Amino acid sequence: MNIQFSDRMGEIKASAIRELLKLTQQPEIISFAGGLPAPELFPLENMEKIASKVIKEQGKAALQYSTTEGFNPLREVIIEQRLKPAGINATLDNIMVCSGSQQALEFSAKLFVNEGDVILCESPTYLGAINAFRAYKPRFVEIPMDDNGMIIEELEKALKENENVKFIYTIPDFQNPTGRTMSIERRKRLAKIGAEYNIPVLEDSPYGELIFDGEVYPSIKSFDEDGFVIQLGTYSKTFCPGLRIGWICAHEDIIQKYVTIKQGADLQSSTLDQRIVAAYMEEYNLDEHIKTIIEVYRRRRDVMINTMKDTFPKEIKFTNSKGGLFTWVELREDLDAAKILEEALKLQVAFVPGASFFPNGGNKNYFRLNYSNMSEERIKEGIEKLAEVLKRYYN
Amino acid sequence: MNIQFSDRMGEIKASAIRELLKLTQQPEIISFAGGLPAPELFPLENMEKIASKVIKEQGKAALQYSTTEGFNPLREVIIEQRLKPAGINATLDNIMVCSGSQQALEFSAKLFVNEGDVILCESPTYLGAINAFRAYKPRFVEIPMDDNGMIIEELEKALKENENVKFIYTIPDFQNPTGRTMSIERRKRLAKIGAEYNIPVLEDSPYGELIFDGEVYPSIKSFDEDGFVIQLGTYSKTFCPGLRIGWICAHEDIIQKYVTIKQGADLQSSTLDQRIVAAYMEEYNLDEHIKTIIEVYRRRRDVMINTMKDTFPKEIKFTNSKGGLFTWVELREDLDAAKILEEALKLQVAFVPGASFFPNGGNKNYFRLNYSNMSEERIKEGIEKLAEVLKRYYN
Repeated sequence: MNIQFSDRMGEIKASAIRELLKLTQQPEIISFAGGLPAPELFPLENMEKIASKVIKEQGKAALQYSTTEGFNPLREVIIEQRLKPAGINATLDNIMVCSGSQQALEFSAKLFVNEGDVILCESPTYLGAINAFRAYKPRFVEIPMDDNGMIIEELEKALKENENVKFIYTIPDFQNPTGRTMSIERRKRLAKIGAEYNIPVLEDSPYGELIFDGEVYPSIKSFDEDGFVIQLGTYSKTFCPGLRIGWICAHEDIIQKYVTIKQGADLQSSTLDQRIVAAYMEEYNLDEHIKTIIEVYRRRRDVMINTMKDTFPKEIKFTNSKGGLFTWVELREDLDAAKILEEALKLQVAFVPGASFFPNGGNKNYFRLNYSNMSEERIKEGIEKLAEVLKRYYN
Repeated sequence: MNIQFSDRMGEIKASAIRELLKLTQQPEIISFAGGLPAPELFPLENMEKIASKVIKEQGKAALQYSTTEGFNPLREVIIEQRLKPAGINATLDNIMVCSGSQQALEFSAKLFVNEGDVILCESPTYLGAINAFRAYKPRFVEIPMDDNGMIIEELEKALKENENVKFIYTIPDFQNPTGRTMSIERRKRLAKIGAEYNIPVLEDSPYGELIFDGEVYPSIKSFDEDGFVIQLGTYSKTFCPGLRIGWICAHEDIIQKYVTIKQGADLQSSTLDQRIVAAYMEEYNLDEHIKTIIEVYRRRRDVMINTMKDTFPKEIKFTNSKGGLFTWVELREDLDAAKILEEALKLQVAFVPGASFFPNGGNKNYFRLNYSNMSEERIKEGIEKLAEVLKRYYN
């Protein structure tokens, strides 16, 4: 067979994480690889009641086609429960429901990027975003980070040096993969920069509410006075990812464009799932549920970080994340995390090598660890095994 | 605000149907516009049992992320229940689950089409496909049809005359919008043509099982010996569209590419919906359910066609569809169906003007009527009102 695929297929690769996830479905593997929530925390009993109620009471509508923008009561709970408390004022016209934030990322590249256009992003950044964007053949310009997130001076330099920048992509809270959080000052500045340069700021916020100490940071969107910030949110990390319900919050002219794209892409997200989420959020308190998640993840983070401190060679650096799902590990420059993964897998421990988080390559000496999906015991055991492997390279 | 969108946004328009559907949500409107199944036939009681059972028994997995390819037991029931009886031999490697056929259409253009490449399609063809494809800036070459579907001699002529043809798009069964069905001889020929020209044949089959008289026609894919036919299927028309569950059946090398695209596009379709559909199909008999749907739709088609025969001006032609959801109406060449729609809406009757089903424009003197979503009484009343409007133009 000799079928000709489009040129863009040369750009997209199978996701390293999704491929790894298949391996790690074997129960004996201690996996720090995915970004999976803890399934033992899913509110099964309430979900069963709600699903049953939705089908009983709204079945004909819940199983039928519906509008592309999304189910209005769901858009309303997103506005009231998730956006208002985060300081974001929005109306129905500012919200489109989508199938997880991943879909919003792909739509964003489709909406803004012509071949060769520039996307500015943190270095490193979420590999699922890189893959989604790549199909539209952008040029990535990576902006260096420090412990306070993307360095704004570097960003402004890149804005001046590059033509055809189409958007700035950032994950301000407990960033994937580094676990770093952007300071409030930088958030304010970034919201202004969009308007100054006529360039949208894509704020990807899946983890912001999972903060272990202190208050949730205000969203970049909450400082947006000019409509250039596009906020992407999701129920995947605070509720149930299997339902694939996320949202885009943006200026209504931009939302209209996203709606047109979604019509062509899949008509709409699952009516049933949208109605289940809406009914759940009307009946139960997600904030209480998030508190439970935070308790569990905080302890897991503590076990992971403490075990790393106790067992990892001292030269190895890592983030002590204050929320979210990940810590980021920096090895000596000559080491290759992909090779270390091979050895770790022999001890049945998995993680994601860092190179695929850098769109322009290089940086083989990093890896990402997830702590949300394994029990404290398994985390301790896994990190100890990983330390064994790492010690072979340090002395 | 002066944000710059990508060039492709100039190509995509809001779907005429989805925009009309919003209007037609008013209950007083008699809508022949959408392609909506009859919601009173949804198996609500059984669905409620199944949803409840799935969450109770498999909740942790059902609400969690899962693999991009789709839930294996769902892929298995697709193979055993839908493909095997249609004469298609497939294994798990030949199937990817997607969010309705619409998503498969968008993915297909992404997979095969570079800017300026040619797509061959029936004239007219499904407007949702045109919109999905357009984002990738193809050139459409329309192949004339007769009562036996796409005319193969015209197709071969187009294959010889055009360079960079990337795929042939066809809806062989009760085509949307014309209601026409491709003959078995042409199906066989089309399956061969793919291999002869090294060009995939995209067989879009949402309606094939909704046949009112006689047997289901063999799928083009069932004649495929060389792996060039890609079959798109869906549960949207035979079960519940709100769950957004469809599939792609193709050679495994092609499925692998679709999987890569889906990873970037939305990671996976809803785990919950996939597991609900799989559990339903394991426990209940979809074929029996389809028989019920056919009974109801056949009567509705009869009422529509008979009322049209009784009340429409004699010069007007229309398809007496043998299955599916639509009939297609041809007016005198100087008439504009969009203007007639305006007048019909004043009498609270809606339909879709035909022009948007022709990718290269023209053909204003056609419209599409759907009979699956209104009761027999409403169909009779709506067609009589429509006849009133039409009579103003004929005498």
